[in-house]
Parts: sequence; structure tokens; C-alpha cells
Amino acid sequence: MLFHVRMNVNLPHDLPAAETADILAREKAYSQELQKSGKWRHIWRIAGQYANYSVFDVPDNTQLHEILSGLPLFKFMDIEVTPLLRHPSAIREDDT
Amino acid sequence: MLFHVRMNVNLPHDLPAAETADILAREKAYSQELQKSGKWRHIWRIAGQYANYSVFDVPDNTQLHEILSGLPLFKFMDIEVTPLLRHPSAIREDDT
Amino acid sequence: MLFHVRMNVNLPHDLPAAETADILAREKAYSQELQKSGKWRHIWRIAGQYANYSVFDVPDNTQLHEILSGLPLFKFMDIEVTPLLRHPSAIREDDT
Amino acid sequence: MLFHVRMNVNLPHDLPAAETADILAREKAYSQELQKSGKWRHIWRIAGQYANYSVFDVPDNTQLHEILSGLPLFKFMDIEVTPLLRHPSAIREDDT
Amino acid sequence: MLFHVRMNVNLPHDLPAAETADILAREKAYSQELQKSGKWRHIWRIAGQYANYSVFDVPDNTQLHEILSGLPLFKFMDIEVTPLLRHPSAIREDDT
Amino acid sequence: MLFHVRMNVNLPHDLPAAETADILAREKAYSQELQKSGKWRHIWRIAGQYANYSVFDVPDNTQLHEILSGLPLFKFMDIEVTPLLRHPSAIREDDT
Amino acid sequence: MLFHVRMNVNLPHDLPAAETADILAREKAYSQELQKSGKWRHIWRIAGQYANYSVFDVPDNTQLHEILSGLPLFKFMDIEVTPLLRHPSAIREDDT
Amino acid sequence: MLFHVRMNVNLPHDLPAAETADILAREKAYSQELQKSGKWRHIWRIAGQYANYSVFDVPDNTQLHEILSGLPLFKFMDIEVTPLLRHPSAIREDDT
Amino acid sequence: MLFHVRMNVNLPHDLPAAETADILAREKAYSQELQKSGKWRHIWRIAGQYANYSVFDVPDNTQLHEILSGLPLFKFMDIEVTPLLRHPSAIREDDT
Amino acid sequence: MLFHVRMNVNLPHDLPAAETADILAREKAYSQELQKSGKWRHIWRIAGQYANYSVFDVPDNTQLHEILSGLPLFKFMDIEVTPLLRHPSAIREDDT
Repeated sequence: MLFHVRMNVNLPHDLPAAETADILAREKAYSQELQKSGKWRHIWRIAGQYANYSVFDVPDNTQLHEILSGLPLFKFMDIEVTPLLRHPSAIREDDT
Repeated sequence: MLFHVRMNVNLPHDLPAAETADILAREKAYSQELQKSGKWRHIWRIAGQYANYSVFDVPDNTQLHEILSGLPLFKFMDIEVTPLLRHPSAIREDDT
Repeated sequence: MLFHVRMNVNLPHDLPAAETADILAREKAYSQELQKSGKWRHIWRIAGQYANYSVFDVPDNTQLHEILSGLPLFKFMDIEVTPLLRHPSAIREDDT
Repeated sequence: MLFHVRMNVNLPHDLPAAETADILAREKAYSQELQKSGKWRHIWRIAGQYANYSVFDVPDNTQLHEILSGLPLFKFMDIEVTPLLRHPSAIREDDT
Repeated sequence: MLFHVRMNVNLPHDLPAAETADILAREKAYSQELQKSGKWRHIWRIAGQYANYSVFDVPDNTQLHEILSGLPLFKFMDIEVTPLLRHPSAIREDDT
Repeated sequence: MLFHVRMNVNLPHDLPAAETADILAREKAYSQELQKSGKWRHIWRIAGQYANYSVFDVPDNTQLHEILSGLPLFKFMDIEVTPLLRHPSAIREDDT
Repeated sequence: MLFHVRMNVNLPHDLPAAETADILAREKAYSQELQKSGKWRHIWRIAGQYANYSVFDVPDNTQLHEILSGLPLFKFMDIEVTPLLRHPSAIREDDT
Repeated sequence: MLFHVRMNVNLPHDLPAAETADILAREKAYSQELQKSGKWRHIWRIAGQYANYSVFDVPDNTQLHEILSGLPLFKFMDIEVTPLLRHPSAIREDDT
Repeated sequence: MLFHVRMNVNLPHDLPAAETADILAREKAYSQELQKSGKWRHIWRIAGQYANYSVFDVPDNTQLHEILSGLPLFKFMDIEVTPLLRHPSAIREDDT
Repeated sequence: MLFHVRMNVNLPHDLPAAETADILAREKAYSQELQKSGKWRHIWRIAGQYANYSVFDVPDNTQLHEILSGLPLFKFMDIEVTPLLRHPSAIREDDT
């Protein structure tokens, strides 16, 4: 089941550099593991912003929330979730 | 080059049924032709709304606008375009 | 799987009375059938507004959209969907 | 009498971990006691957010405010209250 | 129990004058009857707008909605309801 | 002359308890003195929020501003002022 | 007593030309009479918009509302009123 | 050439009193000098807010910006500029 | 003197085709004449929208308004004007 | 390919003066180098604000993001990007 997610990152400007680097390294590893598993189906950077549009493919809302609330950057993010479904005009198999 | 597009459809409630059916048939054909060509990379229905999130892969802004302004439903739509790029954490080849 | 839905109704003020009555009768029957089936878990009127907050329990986003887009009032409604899940502090069995 | 409540939690990112843990433990106990009493009728987590939708069943506005302003997290929350009533199409006994 | 209500009136500019006059006469009578009963506690015009702020004193949300949805102007209004309670600094007896 | 005022209070979460207590005590005394004088005509708490709706009866805008800007909580408040007048349907003498 | 007023005009695009001309002529005469009386203290066009910023000098809210609701264009306008007072840094006599 | 300017002041609540007093004294002197020169044509306090509406009369956008960005309070302000011109109904000579 | 202008066009969907064609032809001629004169310095289409961003170079606000309010599409447009000036980092001669 | 960019700068009021001066010097050098290269086509200051409107001419979204996220002020900015294209009425060669 697909969900569209927008994530905006707001890092405090005075977060110590080492702490920032650590969080970002963990965020990247966490994201890539989920991409490999197929649950984080797409991720794109939004031009000019510290933000991304993503698509998740998970069995239910509970798992989606576990994934999102487990993000190392979660407490610095604004997140909006939109449930998606196959569009009646879609022809691509993996748009479901 | 990728663009994220949100399309909201606002059909006047008193549009004659035949006119509506004709527009929707042309809209579907138009969309599917562009999906086949690879330019309309993804399309998903937003749950509960007459709206979709799409991703386009086009060589430039001009072609994106030609495609969007050529939509049979264009004059009944609100459209928002967001330029995308590959996310530094992306692992999937076609997220570029 | 639970979804929170807000529905705002905007009937054109000059819709013929007979057409209005017919739509509302069909809307009520449609809603009650879904409530009986357990898919439309809750519905409450919002004080002072032609609007409701509802909770749906459906297997996936696709079925949610089929239900919502099938509402006789759908073309006169603004609908917002929010995916829900069990709260870690919840104690009531059916809040899942 | 029913009220729909949305609670958004905004914890300062630098709140000491012990203070956070203490507040959250008290919040959970406070919420569960009210759920047991029947006054906090429903609580659901909103997917992807540190937020919940709840339904309260209290005799009047005054008691609702006492409950909400007594939340251990109250000073870190944005709260919106909407008065509800039985929907004319409702069939479930406890949607009143 | 007190509720703060804002009512904005949006009459279609081409509503026939006789229909407008009839609605407004019924609105005034309806409002004054409720004021006499003590349920419509206060009503003030907002300077420069076709709108009012009101305070209602009713036993519950259900009765509030019956009153508001029964307004002859209801279908031409945007209405916002806010539940009130006695302020801890209030000294006036009838601010409860 | 009547004015509708909404006051939202935003106390910094780390304001020392003694300073907070002092401000609140002065705020309460200030408010009650103005209520006694008849200038602060009404005050109601908004359910679930650290906010109030008030009605002031003052001879002019200047005195209204002197009162509001003299509030001990003024620098922690967002304030919105709306000028009111007698509604043509009002029957209560003191709604002027 | 001074009030800042913003008026936005929204004429229906299909209003008959004669009706439009008549309303505009009456609007101009009405405005100029009030300017001459000193009650409509200032009026400026906002560049690029069918809108104006004005300053009124009237004895109270009631008279302000009578003036505004009597505007021939009133039913086609969105109006926002802000009460003003002398600024502590003002040096110009007529800024009161 | 006239410009309408809204200035909202947001002083940090913990700014040292001496620093605040110094800034405000310089702000007042700066404003009065410009009022005397005729460039800061009007200034009014907005009731209930730490904000003002002003009208500037300057030869061009560049000089307007130099004046506004030179305000001692500039870094604590939100400023909105709207270009004005003589209204076709204006009768007052200095509304140009 | 430079001004940034955003124009959004909202043509009624049932405007007769001949009337639309006539307005658009006049709009194009009007725009090109002003571009040739140097007053309409830049115009760009916004991708996916019936809208443009433009830059005007005019001696004052009055002339800017005359140009904008004279647009054949004026009554179908929402227009926002922002005064510009040379940026302190600009190196290009004609960015003034 | 052209992009319209709005940049709003929000410097923390207590940023050390030396750090501010260093960032601003690097920002200016960075901007001017890109202007010389032709990629930062236009930049204008917005009157009364610490903000600018710019136009970029870059081969694709990726390069646009590299430029914007490399701005020394990036972490203190809110940035909005709008893709542009040649307007059908444009006559100026470099509006493409």
C-alpha cells in the first residue's frame, strides 16, 4: 500500500557539528536499508530546499508510522502523509 | 529531469454529462500516451480526492509546460510544479 | 486499518429541492449500509457546520477511496483523509 | 457530550532526557486513567506525526478544559477543540 | 454552557429582492425569539462586515447545532463555533 | 464603544516559576480592576487553549490600546481587535 | 477616532455595463461627499489592484459601519477594519 | 511617490532592558527626523499590537529601502510594502 | 524603477470562444508594445500555470497602475506587485 | 533553463558580528562569481525586506540545487523555486 510523504528538515543552526554529522550518517543508513527492503519505494530531493518527497510501500499505517517515527532526524522534521492508490489511468505495473 | 506535479480537478457540477465523458476519455488517452513515452513517469490517485500526484521526466521546463497545458482537463485544474533531483541517499537507479 | 476523514458539504444554493432530497436519501442509505458492515466505524456531526468527522476501518487505501468517491454527495464535498494507528497510550480494544 | 480534539506535541529538542521521560510517563498514566473513566472516549495516533486525534465525552466545556489544561504535556501542545453531536445518519449507539 | 460563534453572511448578489427580504425578516424574528429565551445570550455586528459575533447559552452541543442549522440564513453562512467556559479571573456573574 | 478582543498567551516554557507566578498575579489583579470599572465587559476562557475572548467597553481606540498594552502578559500575547456595534436584531440593552 | 480600512472590489465579470457605470458613479459621489465632510480622511489606490487603503475619522464604531455598509459597492467588497490611534513617535498634528 | 508600510515589531522577550531602551530611543529619533523631512508622511499605532501602519513619500524604491533597512528596529521587524497612487475619487490634495 | 509583478489568469470556463480569442489577441499586442517601449522589462510563463512573472521599469507607481489596469485581461487576473531595487551584490548593469 | 527563486534571509539576532560579516562576505563573492558565469541571471532586492527575487539559468534541476544549497547563507534562508519558460508574448531574446 502506497503513501506519499513530504519531509522538511529544520536543523537548529547551532547544533554541534559532530552531532549533526552523526545524525546524518545514521539517517542515510536507515533510509538506504529501507530502500533496499522495498518499503521506501522512492525518494527525491526538492530543488532549493532541505526537504524530500518520498513514496512508501508498506502493509499498513502502523508500519508506516514506525518507520517514520524511527527516522534519526524525526524530531527535526515536519512530515505530511498522503495515502495513495492506483490511478485509473495508470499503465505502469509498479504504480500500485 | 524530474518534476513533481500535483493536479486537483474541479469540474463544474453542471457540466453536461456528455461533455464530461468526452473530456475524461481524451484525458485518459493523453495521459496513457505520455506514460508509454516515459515522460509521465508516475501517477497516483490521492485517496478521497479528485486529485493526483505525478512525476514527469522531461528534458526541460518548456516541454513540461507544453504537456501540462495540453491536458484536456487543464482549464479545470489547479496545478503545482516542484522541481526534483536525485536525493543523496537514493539507491534506486530510476530515482534520477 | 483506520482513517480519519473530514467531509465538508457545499451544496449549490440553487440545486432543485427534489434533486437535493434524492441525493440526501441516497447518501443516508449508503452511509448506513457501510456503518452496518463495520467499515464506516464512526460518524459525528460538527456543531454549526454542514460537515462531519468520521473514522473508517478498511483493509487498504484503495477500498477507502472507492467508498469515498462513491458517496452520492462526493462531487459537492471537500474531503481530507488522515491515516491513523493505535496510540501507545490507548487502552480501548476497538481503538485499533 | 462529545468533543473532537487534535493535539500536536512540540517538545523542545534540548529538553533533558530525564525530564522528558518523566513527563511522558505522567502523560500516559493521566490519559489511561481518563480512558478508564470513559471521559477520554477515543485516542488515535496520526501517522508520521507526534500528534493525536481524540474524542472526549464530558458533561460540559468546563470539565473538558480542566482535563486538557491538566495534561502534563499541555504547555508543549497546540490543541484544537471541535464540539460534536450525533449525526442524523449514525446507527451506532455509542456515537452519541 | 457558553459557545462563541462567528457568523459570516454571503448572500448571492443576484438573489431576488423579495426572497432576500423574506429571509432577513424570518432571520430577525428567529434571532429575537432565541434572545428572549436566553439561549442567544449576545449578538454584536462586526464593523464593516456582514457578520456577527454571538454568544450562546445552551445545555449541550446538540441544541446549539439545532439552533444554528435552523437559521433562515444558514445555507448562506460560514459559521465557526468555539466552546467557552468561565475564566479564572472573571468577576461578573453572568460570564458563566 | 465595544471591541471584541482575542488574546493568546505564549509563555516561554523555561520562564522561571517565580517570574511566571508574579506576572500571573499582576495580570489577574489588573484584569479584575478593569472588570470592576466596567471597561472590561466580558472575559471567557477558550476551551483547551491558553487564550480568551473578551469584550471591552471604552470611549475610544486610544484607551483600548492603553489598557491592552498595559497588560502584564502583553509581551507574551498575540492580540486581535475587532470593532463591534449594536446588531440590528439585538434586543438586550447591554449589547451596545 | 481613526480607522484603517482596506477595501477589495470584486465585480462579477458579467455585470451589465450600465449597472456597473451607475454603481461606480454613485460610489464616487458618496466617497467624495464623505471626504469633504472630513470623515473619509484618506483614500489611496493600491497599485495593480481594484482595491484601496483608506483612513476614516469618525466618532465611533457605529458611524463607521453605517458609512461602510452604505457604500454602493458594499455587496461586492471585502472589507477589513483596523482601529488606529496616535503613535507615540508621531509629530504630525493630524495623525490623531 | 507614496508607499503603504506595515511594521510589526517582535522584540525577544529576554533582550536586556538597557539595550531595548537604547534601540527605542534611536528608533524614535530616526522616525521623527524622517517625519520632519516629509518622507515619513504618516504613522499610526495599531490598537492592541506592537505594530504600525505608515505612509512614506519618497522619490523611488531605492530610497524607501534605505530608510526602512536603516530603522534601528529593522532586524526585529516584519515589514510589508504596498505601492500606492492617487485614487480617482480622491479630493484631498495631499493624497498624492 | 523596477517592480516585480505576478499575474494569475482565471478565465471563466464558459466564456465564449470568440470573446476569449479577441481578448487574448489584444492582450498580446498590448504586452508586446510595452515590451518594445522598455517598460515591460521581462515576462516569463510559470510552468504548469496560466500565470506569469514579470518585471516592469516605470517612472512611478501611477504609471505602473495605468499599465496594469489597462490590461485587456485585467478583470480576469489576480495581480501582486512587489517594489524592487538594485541588490548590493548585483553586477549586471540592467538589474537596476 | 530558467528558474525564478525567492530567498528570504532570517539571521538569528544574536549571531556574533564577526560570524555575520564573514558569511555575508562569502555570500557576496559566491553570488557575484555565479552572476559572472551567467548562471545567476538576475538578482533584485525586495523593498523593505531582507530578501531577493532572482532568476537562474542552469542546465537542470540538479545544478540549480547545488548552487542554492552551496549558498553561505543557505541554512538561514527560506527558498522557493518556480520553473519558468519563454512566455508566448515575449519579444526579448534573453527572456528564454
